[in-house]
Amino acid sequence: MDERWVLIEPEPFDSAALRGWEGLFTQGSGYLHTRGSLEEHLSDAPQNVTYLRRPTNVTAEQFPQMKSKWGTFVPGIYGNHPLMGKEMANLPSFLGIAPCIDGEYLDLETCVIISHRRALDLRTAVLSRAVRWHTRSGKTVDVAFERFASAARPHLFIQRMTVTCDAVAQIAIRAGIDSDVRTSGYDHAARVGFERVAGDQMRCDFALDTGDQVQIAAWVSLGTSADETAWHYSDEGRAAALTAAIPGSAGQTIYFEKRSAVTSSFDRQPSDLDVLLSLNTGFDALLAEHEAVWRRRWKGTDVIIDGDVESQRTLRLALYHLMRAHPGDSRLAIDPKAYAGDAYRGLYFWDTEMYLLPFFLYTDPERGRMLTDFRIGALDGARKNAAAFGHSGARYPWESDAAGTEQCPNWQYRDHEVHVTADVVYGLAHTARASHDPGYLTRDAAEVLRRTAHYWLERIDRRPGDTYPSLLGVMGPDEYAPITSNNAYTNRLVAFALDQASAAAEDDVTRGQWIATARALPIVRRADGLVMQCEEFEQFAEVDFAALWRDRSRGFASQVSQERLYRSRCLKQADVLLLMMLFPDEFSDAEVRQAWDYYLPYTTHDSSLSPGVHAVVGLRLGLMDQAWAFWQRSLKLDLDGGAEEGIHIAAQGMNWQIAVLGFGGLKTAMQADILTLTPRLPDRWARLAFPVSWKGQRAYVEATHSAVTVENHSDQPLEAQINGIRRRIPAGERVIFEHELQS
Amino acid sequence: MDERWVLIEPEPFDSAALRGWEGLFTQGSGYLHTRGSLEEHLSDAPQNVTYLRRPTNVTAEQFPQMKSKWGTFVPGIYGNHPLMGKEMANLPSFLGIAPCIDGEYLDLETCVIISHRRALDLRTAVLSRAVRWHTRSGKTVDVAFERFASAARPHLFIQRMTVTCDAVAQIAIRAGIDSDVRTSGYDHAARVGFERVAGDQMRCDFALDTGDQVQIAAWVSLGTSADETAWHYSDEGRAAALTAAIPGSAGQTIYFEKRSAVTSSFDRQPSDLDVLLSLNTGFDALLAEHEAVWRRRWKGTDVIIDGDVESQRTLRLALYHLMRAHPGDSRLAIDPKAYAGDAYRGLYFWDTEMYLLPFFLYTDPERGRMLTDFRIGALDGARKNAAAFGHSGARYPWESDAAGTEQCPNWQYRDHEVHVTADVVYGLAHTARASHDPGYLTRDAAEVLRRTAHYWLERIDRRPGDTYPSLLGVMGPDEYAPITSNNAYTNRLVAFALDQASAAAEDDVTRGQWIATARALPIVRRADGLVMQCEEFEQFAEVDFAALWRDRSRGFASQVSQERLYRSRCLKQADVLLLMMLFPDEFSDAEVRQAWDYYLPYTTHDSSLSPGVHAVVGLRLGLMDQAWAFWQRSLKLDLDGGAEEGIHIAAQGMNWQIAVLGFGGLKTAMQADILTLTPRLPDRWARLAFPVSWKGQRAYVEATHSAVTVENHSDQPLEAQINGIRRRIPAGERVIFEHELQS
Repeated sequence: MDERWVLIEPEPFDSAALRGWEGLFTQGSGYLHTRGSLEEHLSDAPQNVTYLRRPTNVTAEQFPQMKSKWGTFVPGIYGNHPLMGKEMANLPSFLGIAPCIDGEYLDLETCVIISHRRALDLRTAVLSRAVRWHTRSGKTVDVAFERFASAARPHLFIQRMTVTCDAVAQIAIRAGIDSDVRTSGYDHAARVGFERVAGDQMRCDFALDTGDQVQIAAWVSLGTSADETAWHYSDEGRAAALTAAIPGSAGQTIYFEKRSAVTSSFDRQPSDLDVLLSLNTGFDALLAEHEAVWRRRWKGTDVIIDGDVESQRTLRLALYHLMRAHPGDSRLAIDPKAYAGDAYRGLYFWDTEMYLLPFFLYTDPERGRMLTDFRIGALDGARKNAAAFGHSGARYPWESDAAGTEQCPNWQYRDHEVHVTADVVYGLAHTARASHDPGYLTRDAAEVLRRTAHYWLERIDRRPGDTYPSLLGVMGPDEYAPITSNNAYTNRLVAFALDQASAAAEDDVTRGQWIATARALPIVRRADGLVMQCEEFEQFAEVDFAALWRDRSRGFASQVSQERLYRSRCLKQADVLLLMMLFPDEFSDAEVRQAWDYYLPYTTHDSSLSPGVHAVVGLRLGLMDQAWAFWQRSLKLDLDGGAEEGIHIAAQGMNWQIAVLGFGGLKTAMQADILTLTPRLPDRWARLAFPVSWKGQRAYVEATHSAVTVENHSDQPLEAQINGIRRRIPAGERVIFEHELQS
Repeated sequence: MDERWVLIEPEPFDSAALRGWEGLFTQGSGYLHTRGSLEEHLSDAPQNVTYLRRPTNVTAEQFPQMKSKWGTFVPGIYGNHPLMGKEMANLPSFLGIAPCIDGEYLDLETCVIISHRRALDLRTAVLSRAVRWHTRSGKTVDVAFERFASAARPHLFIQRMTVTCDAVAQIAIRAGIDSDVRTSGYDHAARVGFERVAGDQMRCDFALDTGDQVQIAAWVSLGTSADETAWHYSDEGRAAALTAAIPGSAGQTIYFEKRSAVTSSFDRQPSDLDVLLSLNTGFDALLAEHEAVWRRRWKGTDVIIDGDVESQRTLRLALYHLMRAHPGDSRLAIDPKAYAGDAYRGLYFWDTEMYLLPFFLYTDPERGRMLTDFRIGALDGARKNAAAFGHSGARYPWESDAAGTEQCPNWQYRDHEVHVTADVVYGLAHTARASHDPGYLTRDAAEVLRRTAHYWLERIDRRPGDTYPSLLGVMGPDEYAPITSNNAYTNRLVAFALDQASAAAEDDVTRGQWIATARALPIVRRADGLVMQCEEFEQFAEVDFAALWRDRSRGFASQVSQERLYRSRCLKQADVLLLMMLFPDEFSDAEVRQAWDYYLPYTTHDSSLSPGVHAVVGLRLGLMDQAWAFWQRSLKLDLDGGAEEGIHIAAQGMNWQIAVLGFGGLKTAMQADILTLTPRLPDRWARLAFPVSWKGQRAYVEATHSAVTVENHSDQPLEAQINGIRRRIPAGERVIFEHELQS
């Protein structure tokens, strides 16, 4: 076992930690995702607990403390929640495989468990378990599970179990589909039907309250030895199962396989469940083709950190989830929990453009483009959303469903966090530049640019006496300042969006208006030059963090009222610093340092989006110790229980950015025209190496404390600037830049 | 019929207008309130339509368009709404009386109605109807109803019907109790039980989802002629009824009486339904004792306007509802819809102190004091509410239930509209001064003063660089500016509250802090002296009302997004002007005029609380035409459909204030130490006359264009200042102040 590649749940099994591991061990094919729940489940963890979720600040929201939370998600399949709006539905679980020895079902809480090991191999995306169990009948049983969501056949989920008993025993296996599940406490089932379609095959038809539908078929097999008649079928209304009793002799290993196939009403083309399941391909061949896909993926993405096993493995966990979560379908994006939980309701936020997109654009640009293509396809929703606010043009929703419709139930974010509409344009421009395809903006995205620009021209206000336009009533990235004037981040992003749109303007007058507005939108500064987050910031109250924020293990928002947050100098997350991270050349080091010194003491990092930005900006400023601390904080966010409600995928996207843009010092295509790198390795690292896709050319970068090597994997020369030295790297060749690295 | 006293529904009957008349015709004993629904109901207006109400801005909320909306309310009896919180429950209706001729039930929509007259006699609070109906069997039937909520026996509701048919007919009468009702679409029934307790008596036991309970008994009688066995009892689960068939000869008048008695778990002392109903007192005697109470009430309150029948009657409608709605119980106050509808959920807002209290304090001071006693009793709730915000002390809830617990589901009001806590103290001080009982503050209310002062000292912020304390993150009376700094109204009221509290401070240091803070809280002014609503006001956007507010028959908020309201210079209601109305001597006429000129163009009057304040301030400024228009607007708010969801009782309270404080020119006890009057009669009025209770002395004021007469009804001399002339009016005498009235 390579500890740089394998994530292991600590022994002994602790049900209090299960929910976190269910998040971390989420597997997915892009099409289909399942949380890392136990195959046999816990008897004391009902999945049909019903409650009514209410709109609230998700960061401070308290989720019911369940031991286990199943999650089976097909992006694009929604339920209608009466209070929250549309939400990705938790679908019937097909994971269930329950071994039973002498009448005793495996249960990690109630059985005598000798050992339990569970591990996710990040390289292959296979989750495996080995349980040794001492039964009440006195036998010792070894149960091993393996499972994967086939990356080669995204509708398929493959499971294998072997059971070995040290004595003759009555062995039974029960495998089923359970639809008695809830999505954040809500039952979205409109109709459920089960059917045995063959002796070894069952099917579940599941219709949701939106009209969306899924079909799930499960096929079970005991290998060659078991005949069809061995399976007993039972239908309990919301669940059904196939059960078989198998005579087991001492030491004999019983082999069991379960394959599940899922189709849905969101599928572009209908596929036949029977065809999906009736493969002649055996388990090993299915595994091999799956592993081949993951091998290809890692080749294009893997970041190697020599000298720091923990960071290495944890960063790979980030990349694993980034790759796993990408739906591979431009009708979809990636939700903040990466389809590993329903807390953010499977909806799409600005996280996609600002936190996830870079990873894809510089490792797998086609998949990056899909994410911004999603916004082009969602333009109609954005136009309807603008109309709902009394505006023409397009206004992207704060929480978008696949159709681009606003689903945010909290008015303060929905109404005021308008920057998302500019972030969308930033993302489109990023795709255009990173893929060296300016036509993407003038052709594919032109209508988005134009319509959003029209929206901005209506959204700006011109206050009496002011010589400049203003964006008022705005919530910036810092969500603890809800309704502010001229938020610097928002104004800069809107100016950027208007500039981009000007190339696609209908006429010269319009173009002129857009350019003039872009120039005139202010970045408010204090007399000493400090970039103000918004006009009001210095009119907010000082807050006594020491007195009010006693328990630093929990967020600040969990310990003070929202009312206080909204009138105080306290940031949920980086705001001005995010602006400076995105537009580094527009601010001098002194200006960035001034902002860092001013805002950091006020910043609570209650948002998982915050530490990563601080790490990158800290590295720019040469604040290695602070940057390292922020990097570690961002990296480990989801370990130790942070993943209970899913993966903080934006933070994982930032972790790649910290590694490659921060430590690697890669400038994005928004910041440089040619491949530009200034690596800053921590002392404890011996080597940092990563592939990068730069405007259609692939390269491989290796940085040590003594040199940077860039290998041009393309068939064209590659222009590069490393530590300020510009070189042309011939096709297929590598160039070594020896240097003294600042550490 | 005296048209100055009787409110008549226009003929012919229009079911589209019914809901408004149900509001206007609401009757109540204080203990028990029923909307003015038809006894026989409409067959096409189900009362069990279920829907889920969501928290929103009530001013802009769209209510389901039902033809009829029953309302039966016992203040203090609540249901638990899953989204809205606690709300006054709509209770089983006992109004039902359905006459049936030859198998045809009376229905104003489906029967042939020759005439239908319905009228509320404001003097007696009796609602009567006369229907002439041509049956399908060819007969002409006269049906007359009378009903009243006994002011003498508040648990009792009395109804009478007579039926006269011009030919021999089969007459049946059905009278019941119907519990299949909803409160704003929600069914709060936990248990319902019906029982026939005697041949002519039935009972309904109704338990709510809060555990609150009501018992309703109904007794029916056909006078002396009918024997007990005539009644048939039917129980349909959620409703039950007694039915009798009566042989009717031509021209014979059938007399029917129904008495309902209600008790509840909120009653201070249990009363026996049987005892309540088994009166030997006949209808006429019950009516006489009821009328006697109302005679007494009018004596102490009636405002006479000679020369303007419409204003006279409509103002009496206001006083009728003010008197009818007062619960006569210091555990309760008056909700914004005056128990005539469930839109504001029967909860208590600042409306009580600032809009309703003056009417009671100057006409029926004991009842006035009950309303402020309510806040003293609710102190525990206010302390819990402060704790919920992380503060010690007491913070009164924005929407209070009887226990003083916060029930506001919208965070912007709940969190930020803190002025209510100062308004409560203003109300307490008003009671103390108006009843000439300073001990009320140092004794009864001392703890409220101290605790709220402690809250304010924690709630203020001291911004770096400022020399004064600030109240940040505040919503003032204008609810379209949600989170602002140093709202003038709020700061002044808080300063007032701290000043009042200083007399009750625990020690000198605390007293000193409170006084110093009161002095230092700023009223922000523009360079030219304009009192700023808040620091941010001039940083808000100008809004193009002409372009955005096309349909002036509906509120501005119904035509623009909340997002725009929250960033624009648009007031929902008077804010600075309300401050100036309350503290008239702190602002010169020029300052008030400056504020009037500045804010009025921005004021939408979307709140019913706005026109009345403008009328009073307009009168001070001598802007008679504008003041008149605002007075008429405020006065007529509930006619023409405005009362569909209940009575705008704060506006009705303001209507008394416009008449007495505005036109009458009475200074309140907060503004003057002795009875001070400066009447300003409109030209069209010949005479304005009203009783006034001034610091324990009763007086009667009559103003004409030529003189003001004050009659001292007390047994002590009365100091008075009329039009600037000070006089001592001997006990029992009247003094005439002749003068030239400014018109």
